[in-house]
Amino acid sequence: MPVIDIHNHFFPRTWPDLAARYGTPDWPWIKHTEAGKADIMLGDRFFRSIYSACWDPEVRLNEMDRDGVDMQVLSATPVLFAYERPVEHALDCAMLFNDAALELCARGKGRLKSLCQVPLQDIDASCKELSRCMRAGHLGVQIGNHVGEKNLDDPGIVTFLHHCANAGAAVLVHPWDMLAPQRMPKYMMPWTVGMPAETQLGIVAMILGGAFDKLPSKLRICFAHGGGSFAFLLGRLENAWHHHPVAHGLCALPPSHYLNRFYVDSAVFDERGAAGIGLSLPAGRTSGRDSHTIKFAGLSDERPSAGWECGNVSRS
Amino acid sequence: MPVIDIHNHFFPRTWPDLAARYGTPDWPWIKHTEAGKADIMLGDRFFRSIYSACWDPEVRLNEMDRDGVDMQVLSATPVLFAYERPVEHALDCAMLFNDAALELCARGKGRLKSLCQVPLQDIDASCKELSRCMRAGHLGVQIGNHVGEKNLDDPGIVTFLHHCANAGAAVLVHPWDMLAPQRMPKYMMPWTVGMPAETQLGIVAMILGGAFDKLPSKLRICFAHGGGSFAFLLGRLENAWHHHPVAHGLCALPPSHYLNRFYVDSAVFDERGAAGIGLSLPAGRTSGRDSHTIKFAGLSDERPSAGWECGNVSRS
Repeated sequence: MPVIDIHNHFFPRTWPDLAARYGTPDWPWIKHTEAGKADIMLGDRFFRSIYSACWDPEVRLNEMDRDGVDMQVLSATPVLFAYERPVEHALDCAMLFNDAALELCARGKGRLKSLCQVPLQDIDASCKELSRCMRAGHLGVQIGNHVGEKNLDDPGIVTFLHHCANAGAAVLVHPWDMLAPQRMPKYMMPWTVGMPAETQLGIVAMILGGAFDKLPSKLRICFAHGGGSFAFLLGRLENAWHHHPVAHGLCALPPSHYLNRFYVDSAVFDERGAAGIGLSLPAGRTSGRDSHTIKFAGLSDERPSAGWECGNVSRS
Repeated sequence: MPVIDIHNHFFPRTWPDLAARYGTPDWPWIKHTEAGKADIMLGDRFFRSIYSACWDPEVRLNEMDRDGVDMQVLSATPVLFAYERPVEHALDCAMLFNDAALELCARGKGRLKSLCQVPLQDIDASCKELSRCMRAGHLGVQIGNHVGEKNLDDPGIVTFLHHCANAGAAVLVHPWDMLAPQRMPKYMMPWTVGMPAETQLGIVAMILGGAFDKLPSKLRICFAHGGGSFAFLLGRLENAWHHHPVAHGLCALPPSHYLNRFYVDSAVFDERGAAGIGLSLPAGRTSGRDSHTIKFAGLSDERPSAGWECGNVSRS
């Protein structure tokens, strides 16, 4: 069975000056610092240090060989989503990065594929760009788990997911724009507390909001980071559903009946956690490098419980 | 081994009109609706329906017999905390409920004990009330996982926890005042998404903020609901700690080294989840009744991994 990494991010080596292009501040740009290294900046603010595996297919393929990965499915990082921007800017930005992804994949000796991004604040524009990208060779789309205060049960987003199902586009849901930043100002807690909560919110909203009831079962949707905190909290959710009328939401069945409707990746960094979501991992942990984290799932025709059939490599 | 329920809430049958007493609106009050039933109101707003087990020790003891519980340690519900109120009001309110808890326990045939509450927005007042309550017969204190934007690594809260350790007062941390309510307006998601995130935030802040390094190991502190989402997210936290300098926080050791510093209860409503936190449960699930939920832990001198030695009963 081939090992396919479905959760890793890329950055092009260069892209246009988006602040100048659109006349608005704080767009991401890449500041090359030394050979093979760069910083992602948001306007004047440092966001993250990255290195050449983000943009150089040779470096990436070498790392895949080292880690025993047969194929990678690339996606942008959520910092590029621009859902809060005017749709014409977000669409133009999406097209830039979507085309850049295909260029990078074209140099990947058949081992690199990609997910596109869309301006999810506008459903018509998102459906149109998704269709364009599928024709151009993307395998699907990566979306954020929310658009402002709209969760994944928002009627427009459900419409977009329906379009994805019909287009055969796989959907990877990545947490972003983490909630309550003033409550977790330090220690990267938006990543260790906020992100899993965002993913939990995405899954719970889809279930209780009736999105899975409306969507066809052929939709392939996967939640990042092992589904956030969902696996451990399913009991709490199920209990609330049975005992509190207001927690019942709109869904036709108890929450546990929807586990066969979505996938999760194996990026939980803990074999015990992976076991908790029904994954059997070889010994070893995933690495934790900044923007090119090795986290992957071996694709399979089977859909075991709520998880992908997964493999992981050791780098320690 | 006796079965001791350490997480259940009480309401007195009556208490003074706090809005009139303090001249400020939206205090909780109890509206008796029919024999043995009542609604908790927050000003004009309905909060929760409860029944006589909340205030009648006879009813409570009968339920304990039915459920195989030897002893209960009662606590107020977080809706009574009043941390956002002037301290003199919150202290007066705490004293009212603390004394009411002891009255209820006095009629419990030795099988009811209690945790007090304190005005945690004021550390001196909290230490003083904790000492008064310990002398009066409380076993410890229940606190919220935050006070406004102060997490459990706040120096004042750490001082209070130090006082609890020295006083031999057990501490139960309950999530409350859930984050980002505008992001989860429906379906009780503040309870199924927000509460576990709050508890995760409490534990992570204590670890990364260095609170456990400062506090003596004799502190007995327990987090509600199986520790929120912490158990499943430990791998993510540990990975971030090792790979991102900013995620390192102030703590001396990796996060996994602090698992022997706190307890979690068994209120996870799922045997698989319980197994994930090192608990071995008999068959059966906890019940999910509103304000008198059966969730309990058999006390033990041992501290197995991150959990209490727990027992659970079946009511289905």
